[in-house]
Order: sequence, then C-alpha cells, then structure tokens
Amino acid sequence: MSITITAFERSPDGGKGLARDTRVRWALEEVGQPYEVRPVSFQAMKEPAHMAVHPFGQIPTYEESGLALFESGAIVLHIAGQHEGLLPAGVDARARAIGWMFAALSTVEPPILELVVAKFIEGDKPWTQARLPLIADRIRTRLRQLSARLGDADWLDGAFSAGDLMMVSVLLRLRPSGLLDEFPSLAAYVARGEARPAYQRAYAAQAAAARR
Amino acid sequence: MSITITAFERSPDGGKGLARDTRVRWALEEVGQPYEVRPVSFQAMKEPAHMAVHPFGQIPTYEESGLALFESGAIVLHIAGQHEGLLPAGVDARARAIGWMFAALSTVEPPILELVVAKFIEGDKPWTQARLPLIADRIRTRLRQLSARLGDADWLDGAFSAGDLMMVSVLLRLRPSGLLDEFPSLAAYVARGEARPAYQRAYAAQAAAARR
Repeated sequence: MSITITAFERSPDGGKGLARDTRVRWALEEVGQPYEVRPVSFQAMKEPAHMAVHPFGQIPTYEESGLALFESGAIVLHIAGQHEGLLPAGVDARARAIGWMFAALSTVEPPILELVVAKFIEGDKPWTQARLPLIADRIRTRLRQLSARLGDADWLDGAFSAGDLMMVSVLLRLRPSGLLDEFPSLAAYVARGEARPAYQRAYAAQAAAARR
Repeated sequence: MSITITAFERSPDGGKGLARDTRVRWALEEVGQPYEVRPVSFQAMKEPAHMAVHPFGQIPTYEESGLALFESGAIVLHIAGQHEGLLPAGVDARARAIGWMFAALSTVEPPILELVVAKFIEGDKPWTQARLPLIADRIRTRLRQLSARLGDADWLDGAFSAGDLMMVSVLLRLRPSGLLDEFPSLAAYVARGEARPAYQRAYAAQAAAARR
C-alpha cells in the first residue's frame, strides 16, 4: 500500500512544524508506515485538481489505493484504525482516546485559531490590539481546564494515543504566544510529545522540505 | 444498555435545537436507541461532579455502562460505530463519512463559532459591527466551497451518514444570520436533514425540555 500526502510547497511557518501535514507525518511515523509527499503551491491548492481531493483547498490530503481523504483529524483517525500504535484495544478506551482528538480540534483549537486569525488576517485592523487579551483569556480558560484534567499524568488517558498526538499538535501552535508557558504541566506535556522519536522524524522531514 | 446524556437545564437558544445535545439526540434517534436526559444547570456544569465527566464544563456528555464520553463529535462517532444506520459499510467509505464529520467540526464550524463569539461575547465591543462583515465573508468562503462539492447531490458522499448529521447540525447554527439562505442548495440540504423523522423526534424532545 503506497501512501501519498500533500503539504505546503512553502510552509507559512518556514518549517516550524505548525502546518497540519506534521500531524499526519507524526501519525505515520508512530505506526511505521512510509509515505510520499506531494508539495502543493498556494495557487495549485485552489485549482480543480487539488479541490477534487480537498474541497476546501487546504493541506494535508491523504491518498492510498482507491481512497482519498482530507482533514487531518480524519486522516490521523484512519491511520490509527488501520495500524497498531495509536489507539488502545477495547471499544471504551478507543472511544475515549478518539474523544480527546475531537476535544483537541473542536474545543481547544477554535480559540487558538481565533488568535491566528486576529494576528495574521486581522493584524492590520485598529481593534486587534484590544482584542488580543480577550482571545488570550479564552485560550487560558481552556488551558486551565485541560491542565486540571491532565494532573500529573504523562498522557490524557493512559498510554500515548492519537488523542495526545492531536492535543500536542494543537497546543504547539501556542508556543509563539507564550501562553503555553503559563501552564508548566502543559508545556511539559507538549515537550513529552515532541521528544517522541516519531515526532522528531516527522518534524525533521517537514523542516527539510521547508529548507528546499 | 442504558444511555444517559446531559443537556442544558435551560438551553440558551430557548429550544431552537442549536445546543449540541441535539446532535447526539439525532444520532440516537437515527439508530433507534432510547436514552435518558440529565439536565445540568449553568452552575452545576462548572462543578466537580460534571467536570469529572466533561473536563471543559460543557454539555453534552454520554454515559453508558462503564463508559463516559464528552465532545458531540466523539459521541456521535461512538454511537455510529456501535449501531447500524450512520456509517456505510467498507473501510474506505466509512473513513470518508468520518472525514465529513471532522470537516464540519474543524473547518466549517470555526468561523461560525467566531460569529457566535462576536455576537454574544464581544457584542458590546466597539469593533464588533465592523468585524461582522469580515467574519461573514470567511463563512461565505466555506459555504461556497461546500456548495460546490455538494453539487446537486442529496448528501455529501452517497447515502445519509454521520458526516451529514454533523454538517447539517453545524449549518443550522447559521440560519439566524441569513447566510445559509444565500446558498440555496445548502439551505435545501439542511432542510433535507431537518425533514428526517429522527431529526424531528430529536428536535421535539429538546424543544419540550426547553418549555418545561
């Protein structure tokens, strides 16, 4: 089975690992599946060939024989379902791990995306400086709750899972803001994720692509 | 197997079906599973007993023997995995249907949540009137792309699935804004979802709870 994913031809973060292909690379590294990468330019991303695979004109996409997927959450979950290593055995434990994937994407990431939009899309607007502290407080609320749940555990629910992979990936986007460091246990949680050999390989691969 | 979900004791929308318990009720109705509802007050939602089940202090939650879940996406996916009726057979078709669930929650809903935040959390701020058209345009971009993909099909990928359930639920939140009606094929898609008997039962149940 040959797997091809798409990634930015030129990542907007210059290779810091914050583009969403990193999540998919990380999942593939965790389960030991080789993959090819097809770089897509910003222009090609909005053209019919790419929009046929990704109706919202974004990256990443995932293609294997006969199957084309988009949405990093769906791709990671598909990989986790097909291979050992990212989901626990047992229906209940799997459901809880998948629950953390949704929590990362639907509850923790939206205020983080608001911050990204404020900085990069509304960065030139007169209201943005006044809004940033409000958005930061909405993010802090989520981080406080997440930190309370994590407690002194290494991972969110037992062993490392696709739920942790997604949560760490979402939280990583906060590092430039300094907000993550206000919650030392979450900063340590993210650092544990980054220290995994599979993450290291994924990060190195996307950084090497950015340098080319 | 006895299923208990939580819902707002007093739904902020007064029973219009926009609270996230409606998605879970709809899924349970589609697969024909009876359920109990435990109403939770805004105060109780932030207290330890509820936070033990939902670390972010929200609704809905889902409890069956030995399993407690939060996140409407995770709950709907769990229900869809345990019962016939919400996911197609076959690994690839299931992955694509689940992909639409993630697309609804991670790509289509975030700008809609931005609109909700602007109206209800930043409604009194001096910049909000100027920001609303920018947010509306970001939503229109997603609706245009979704409409292009849907074309003249009834559902997003073959038969009705959990992906449609989640996408219709997300789009419904736009109705008060008028944005949905700018895209007649999407308005018709949402109306097809609402016309399903299972949705009707779910809607009636949450509306009855709001009247009590």
